[in-house]
Amino acid sequence: MATIATEPTRTDQPTIRSFGPAAALSCRECGERYDLTPRFACDFCFGPLEIAYDFEGITRAAIERGPANIWRYAGLLPVPDNVRELPNMNPGLTPLVQADRLAAELGMRSLHIKDDSGNPTHSFKDRVVAMAVEAARVFGFTTLSCSSTGNLAGAVGAAAARAGFKSCVFIPAGLEQGKIVMAAIYGGRVVALDGNYDDVNRFCSELMGDPAGEDWGFVNVNLRPYYAEGSKSLAYEIAEQLGWRLPDQVIVPIASGSQLTKIDKGLRELIQLGLVEDKPYRIFGAQATGCSPVAQAWESGYDVIQPVKPDTIAKSLAIGNPADGPYVLDVCQRTGGAVAHVSDAEIVDSINLLARTEGVFAETAGGVTTGVLRKLLSQGALDPAAETVVLNTGDGLKTLNAVEAGVTATVPPSLDAFKDAGLL
Amino acid sequence: MATIATEPTRTDQPTIRSFGPAAALSCRECGERYDLTPRFACDFCFGPLEIAYDFEGITRAAIERGPANIWRYAGLLPVPDNVRELPNMNPGLTPLVQADRLAAELGMRSLHIKDDSGNPTHSFKDRVVAMAVEAARVFGFTTLSCSSTGNLAGAVGAAAARAGFKSCVFIPAGLEQGKIVMAAIYGGRVVALDGNYDDVNRFCSELMGDPAGEDWGFVNVNLRPYYAEGSKSLAYEIAEQLGWRLPDQVIVPIASGSQLTKIDKGLRELIQLGLVEDKPYRIFGAQATGCSPVAQAWESGYDVIQPVKPDTIAKSLAIGNPADGPYVLDVCQRTGGAVAHVSDAEIVDSINLLARTEGVFAETAGGVTTGVLRKLLSQGALDPAAETVVLNTGDGLKTLNAVEAGVTATVPPSLDAFKDAGLL
Repeated sequence: MATIATEPTRTDQPTIRSFGPAAALSCRECGERYDLTPRFACDFCFGPLEIAYDFEGITRAAIERGPANIWRYAGLLPVPDNVRELPNMNPGLTPLVQADRLAAELGMRSLHIKDDSGNPTHSFKDRVVAMAVEAARVFGFTTLSCSSTGNLAGAVGAAAARAGFKSCVFIPAGLEQGKIVMAAIYGGRVVALDGNYDDVNRFCSELMGDPAGEDWGFVNVNLRPYYAEGSKSLAYEIAEQLGWRLPDQVIVPIASGSQLTKIDKGLRELIQLGLVEDKPYRIFGAQATGCSPVAQAWESGYDVIQPVKPDTIAKSLAIGNPADGPYVLDVCQRTGGAVAHVSDAEIVDSINLLARTEGVFAETAGGVTTGVLRKLLSQGALDPAAETVVLNTGDGLKTLNAVEAGVTATVPPSLDAFKDAGLL
Repeated sequence: MATIATEPTRTDQPTIRSFGPAAALSCRECGERYDLTPRFACDFCFGPLEIAYDFEGITRAAIERGPANIWRYAGLLPVPDNVRELPNMNPGLTPLVQADRLAAELGMRSLHIKDDSGNPTHSFKDRVVAMAVEAARVFGFTTLSCSSTGNLAGAVGAAAARAGFKSCVFIPAGLEQGKIVMAAIYGGRVVALDGNYDDVNRFCSELMGDPAGEDWGFVNVNLRPYYAEGSKSLAYEIAEQLGWRLPDQVIVPIASGSQLTKIDKGLRELIQLGLVEDKPYRIFGAQATGCSPVAQAWESGYDVIQPVKPDTIAKSLAIGNPADGPYVLDVCQRTGGAVAHVSDAEIVDSINLLARTEGVFAETAGGVTTGVLRKLLSQGALDPAAETVVLNTGDGLKTLNAVEAGVTATVPPSLDAFKDAGLL
């Protein structure tokens, strides 16, 4: 295992802290604390580890003076104090789209789309990989790796290229062509495994335990505690872009479930630090019916997740055994939210609705959240008068096969031909 | 023709000026001035019209207080004073990537990539369409239209959806699938014409003169003077992101040539307004060899452009009869730049280079500018010690067919199989 690099210090400069405000790893189950090392599970209870912080000097003004990317929140994330000077994809500060036309169509008062397709590789994964790259640098890993349903592979490939790491990413065979090209174009290795995402995930754990993988940083395995914190930035941005205010309702897609729990963590931090006024908010989880283990548990009132074999066009959410599923149930329960699912047909219909009303071309995961928005509204589970934010975590260009959209007509380039075709 | 809408005014509010600082249309050839109406050519000399301004109160501080998008420069663009409150795609403030690894590979001191794939529909076209939408609103047009090589069609489709216009866009038959879907997904009409871009352009002029097109705003025809100004924002962003400093050398792709001339206009305005220190800068134009009428004229020392029939993978630059070609020659001459071209093979090679070194997946137009960067360096025409900015105006996801990138291997999900495949 690579050792922790110590940063050089000079007496005329403040010390650069390798992980900024991060103080320790802490077990989410038993609270046991560990040094900031590349580990992800508790030695005592096998619970997942997450980052504990000592925040200092966090003010709205300090954040607003920061760069127009995720590093405006560097003081809230496990990254070096000088992170702005290091090569990184610098994702974040994606648009919060005021979706008045969609709101009108759905009978809502205030609706926003947090459109994370604006990130460098066009998915929210750039946020989490941005954290993992910094951790990999500190730990001295030389290869970046991951198990991926597609978006993460592209984000890792790009970030490794920018930051000067080798990369080797693992995907299930049969992914969308756009996601494969976007993973391979950066020059790293892209290995397809004959199996589904859960098989790929198991494979990565195996490789991580093998001497062959000792210099490898698996962004969503041994770097997972650092990586996962990147999703907190979605909460910070939503609140800042609403004018430093908590939303009433947030709809978040569920793959592993980590993103949803970290958005909750981010919102709670904002309250604790006094950056927003405390008030209740509700978090809703969204899955595709063809991979809805968390929604099934929610509907049945269970607190354990029964793994499923995914069968849905929403491949970026196709994790049949979601590691953070139980925590998602906790968050949705505590905040008064819910977990719901929509069919593939509803996903496609919702992608079209979002594009037609707001000019946002979402990938299937955005169809899932928008579909769940409609479903919960129709069930009365969502308040149409409350301020609502729906996440779009990826880009329609990567899931072209999911939608049907083509030319209206092909005609000769003459006005008469155009008029004759009845296209006016 | 639709009439100009007058904005309601209240005595307790400042008047909203429909075109902000824009004062008139002005002929680029004879200087004749016109009111701000939907016209694009001079009645007297047929020269192109462009916007003349009366700028007021433009300071670095005022810009820096603005939103994290193109509207931070609203005071420099032909848009209403209240543009931030209107539904628009709000593009801009895309990353200026510090390309240290590419610079090292090319032996350069300072290189940045202005990566406009970060815009909402992932090309610089969102910038120009953002202007055209505001003009169309003022003029009361009900349908947004354009001739497009692909990127513009997507930008117009999305912007029309967001802003509540109908849309009907015209493209040459045979475009990349990604560009077609991205144009059609927003619910407007997408009409493919059997011909090349120049045929499509002629068709649009014909339709514009027909009663059938009287309520149509053709963003790059009758709204062109407004539309074209959006490209100035690239100049503003580059200078601000460099720390309010002019670059020494800028490499810009040439399709119609408008973008290059507007970047020059934007840089000159920054000097005139005292926002940056005056110093020389050089602008270089980049074309694909298979559509290089401006580069051919430059090499031959001509000041007229001989139209060509495009044959290149760089379809977004495939304009054989570029309207602003002569003005491009002027700008490159005056600033001490040049116009050069690269082959399709060099384009693909440069896309790969950019992805491998910087994690930026450019569309073919970005391969053209990066290819020209390499060519001009090797010819000694570009100073490797000078601060250089290369534009990437679009997204590799839209031109997937241009590159070859796929999985390294497909193997069973077992460590032994992986090791046996020699992938470590």
